[in-house]
Amino acid sequence: MLPIAVDAMGGDHAPSEIVSGARLAFEAGIPVTLVGRAADIGDTGPLVVHEASEVIAMDDDPAQGVRRKKDSSLVRAAELVRDGAASAMVSAGNTGATMASALLRMGRIKGVNRPAIATPLPVIGTTPTTLLDAGANAEVQPEWLVQFAQMGSVYARHRFGIVKPRVGLLSIGEESSKGTSLVKATHRMLAEAGGVHFIGNVEGRDVLTDQVDVVVTDGFTGNVMLKTLEGALDALVPALITGLREEKALSDHVEAVVPAIYRVRDRLDPENTGGAMLLGVDGVCIISHGSSRAKSIANAARIAQEMVLAGVVGELRSAVAPA
Amino acid sequence: MLPIAVDAMGGDHAPSEIVSGARLAFEAGIPVTLVGRAADIGDTGPLVVHEASEVIAMDDDPAQGVRRKKDSSLVRAAELVRDGAASAMVSAGNTGATMASALLRMGRIKGVNRPAIATPLPVIGTTPTTLLDAGANAEVQPEWLVQFAQMGSVYARHRFGIVKPRVGLLSIGEESSKGTSLVKATHRMLAEAGGVHFIGNVEGRDVLTDQVDVVVTDGFTGNVMLKTLEGALDALVPALITGLREEKALSDHVEAVVPAIYRVRDRLDPENTGGAMLLGVDGVCIISHGSSRAKSIANAARIAQEMVLAGVVGELRSAVAPA
Repeated sequence: MLPIAVDAMGGDHAPSEIVSGARLAFEAGIPVTLVGRAADIGDTGPLVVHEASEVIAMDDDPAQGVRRKKDSSLVRAAELVRDGAASAMVSAGNTGATMASALLRMGRIKGVNRPAIATPLPVIGTTPTTLLDAGANAEVQPEWLVQFAQMGSVYARHRFGIVKPRVGLLSIGEESSKGTSLVKATHRMLAEAGGVHFIGNVEGRDVLTDQVDVVVTDGFTGNVMLKTLEGALDALVPALITGLREEKALSDHVEAVVPAIYRVRDRLDPENTGGAMLLGVDGVCIISHGSSRAKSIANAARIAQEMVLAGVVGELRSAVAPA
Repeated sequence: MLPIAVDAMGGDHAPSEIVSGARLAFEAGIPVTLVGRAADIGDTGPLVVHEASEVIAMDDDPAQGVRRKKDSSLVRAAELVRDGAASAMVSAGNTGATMASALLRMGRIKGVNRPAIATPLPVIGTTPTTLLDAGANAEVQPEWLVQFAQMGSVYARHRFGIVKPRVGLLSIGEESSKGTSLVKATHRMLAEAGGVHFIGNVEGRDVLTDQVDVVVTDGFTGNVMLKTLEGALDALVPALITGLREEKALSDHVEAVVPAIYRVRDRLDPENTGGAMLLGVDGVCIISHGSSRAKSIANAARIAQEMVLAGVVGELRSAVAPA
């Protein structure tokens, strides 16, 4: 297969951790190529670097960044996919600019209203729950949410091997009468939509359970949920350790398990499941967390390879095609 | 002070746990009275029971329940407050029906557009964060959110002694340009609103930190966030224990700390902080979690007493009065 274009310049730990991650992927047999400023990147070992002279910073305005920095690593990575020189792109950089680059250079899949970010949330003991939209579209239409359900089902099927993913619509009560007018209208449409195994409304507390495989919502609510979960993990683990340390009688036991608590924490972290995918653009685009280190980047490259080999873009095209 | 009217019939463990909770409160010196079907309630010791022949079930339609069951414990409890026979009401019953009873019988504070549910979220090491609206209004207007900010500030001041509560607007980025059109319009209005120490947008991951005291959002997003946090706690603690148990070398230490993990978990549970208050109705109305047991009900009665003694309803009236 064609190499995966990894944006060497994006992310809090770019370029060093990104390059290390790309090398890890390469050593695992995944074809990768780097995109960025060769002078900044340094030694890449056996990896090819596609020169791109500009960088869209983490806090740049996405639309302006993509419009003005035509020779940026993000724009060039998307062009490599468009031009058939790469099979996929991976970036831990500015999320908005990653979406804009993919959308403007690769284009949308025919029939897709809006691309959405599908983010897997780890669920202990079973397959992850796919949340979408995790932040691409703050405001949506019911028709878009129906497509998110169709696209999320394709993703969950190919990424996690779930034959018939159960799709839930995020709301504030199980009854179809609960929620905003948007949710109520979407509920009616999902009940009749093709290619979706719709199980009805789900609530915030169902998302991390075995009750649902794909959770559909607008990008505002989805992003709030994702960040709330990240924040909960950030808050709860130190709080738990502090609380345990207050139990003086247990101090030997507590100190012995503290490192293990952090190990389990890392398995539960949505950042470490990784492989959020921008669904609906005409190519594979994997969005990594800004805080990604080498292992996360290698993991993202592996997921990109899986999605390419599974032909997910073609599957998405079929899923949204009018019946 | 006048007694607090406790709805004996509402909640998953009514009436037995509710009655036990009311008795705990009474023994702690808090004046309480029960409302419900005396025949079902049984022995109440020294507590007076106000007879109400009907019950609005947990899954009844709220508006219909309140309209049709005029002699229900919820409607009667709200009437006791309206008629000056009780100082506050407490219920662990049907949340929608509790809101409707309070709103229809007590009425709104003059000038309030819509009442909102203020729910405290525990933050280890500091005062809780007050989240509102936690579910009363799925769809809102910017003006309502500004009032929520004003009312939430009053609540945080009197409930937690925070002199100048920092108010954040929930969004999906810190910049004022981020979020939905509703959020952007609200941001502009909050920046100029009286009685609010507005610190700008906050994200899901800030809510459980020491960065903000009052988080304002619509009732859809707020309810999703609250239930996501509850679900995260439900999922993470068992997942953590399962993960720790996989580390066989640590098994003695792990088993020794498991009970302590559950003890800390309970301190972190928003259900146990309790004392969600319906702000904006003309009386004190405390909404307890449906799963409340005796201790939570006693705690809710204590909070109701504090809010009455602090004159919070009068403070709310001043906060929303036009300058």
